[in-house]
Amino acid sequence: MYIKPIGVIHSPFKKKEDFKQSKEKSLNDYEKSEGELEIFSEFEPGLKDIDNFSHLIIIFAFHKSRQRNLFAHPPHDGKKRGVFSTRSPDRPNPLGMTVVKLIKREKNRIKVSGVDMIEGTPILDIKPYTPKDLKEKALFGWLSKKQNNKCLDFDIS
Amino acid sequence: MYIKPIGVIHSPFKKKEDFKQSKEKSLNDYEKSEGELEIFSEFEPGLKDIDNFSHLIIIFAFHKSRQRNLFAHPPHDGKKRGVFSTRSPDRPNPLGMTVVKLIKREKNRIKVSGVDMIEGTPILDIKPYTPKDLKEKALFGWLSKKQNNKCLDFDIS
Repeated sequence: MYIKPIGVIHSPFKKKEDFKQSKEKSLNDYEKSEGELEIFSEFEPGLKDIDNFSHLIIIFAFHKSRQRNLFAHPPHDGKKRGVFSTRSPDRPNPLGMTVVKLIKREKNRIKVSGVDMIEGTPILDIKPYTPKDLKEKALFGWLSKKQNNKCLDFDIS
Repeated sequence: MYIKPIGVIHSPFKKKEDFKQSKEKSLNDYEKSEGELEIFSEFEPGLKDIDNFSHLIIIFAFHKSRQRNLFAHPPHDGKKRGVFSTRSPDRPNPLGMTVVKLIKREKNRIKVSGVDMIEGTPILDIKPYTPKDLKEKALFGWLSKKQNNKCLDFDIS
């Protein structure tokens, strides 16, 4: 299956190192990280009607990942986890998914917050966040032990 | 970018027509639709630790889609919408995303509910549903008008 980028993410995290320095950030700080989705102009018509959704699902490529692992070592965890129980970029298909908050769209440029991707990350798809995506009673497995609200920053592309 | 399936979805919806017949189903009925994720055995080790998550994010291929459209006509809506404001399968990259509820895993087979994919849909990735995916104050754009709880069944692969 062949897929191609529809745009690119502009992020406050310019390189992997910027991201690692922010490990002590809380989940809440990530919610405040602002960035911009630049959609290639040929796809701009497809953005019609997104403006009144508060949140967007971004499917992107972990373009810096070079490893196809079945296990991951999430930060602040200290254990070897099955990769499908983590958001590690080093997974069988290097696909990422983040829900961002839509701040403002101007033509093919969408200002968002909640950015945890690196500068230049290729965007593969944008979907509206719908009621079916909101699971209020969800339980978070091994993450539940980490109630100190440390970041989930293994979602690095 | 080349990606390959890590498994296949077994669904109560055996063909597109089954899905269309269910248009009158409510969102709640979809939550009850049970199916099975069959993960190819080479990837089974990566499923370690997923069992205590209540919900999983499934990234899949809309393998029956043959159209790459910028607009969609969602059911029960009657309007032409920008494809990125819909979950239509006919989009620039035929990638789907559904949050399912994990019922039980036995080795490489995961029983889930909330299935809105068709039988045989290729699974590309499984991710844990985390607190960052839960947006309690989300607003749902043009979907908000559809308070009659009709299904969101344009997520057909």
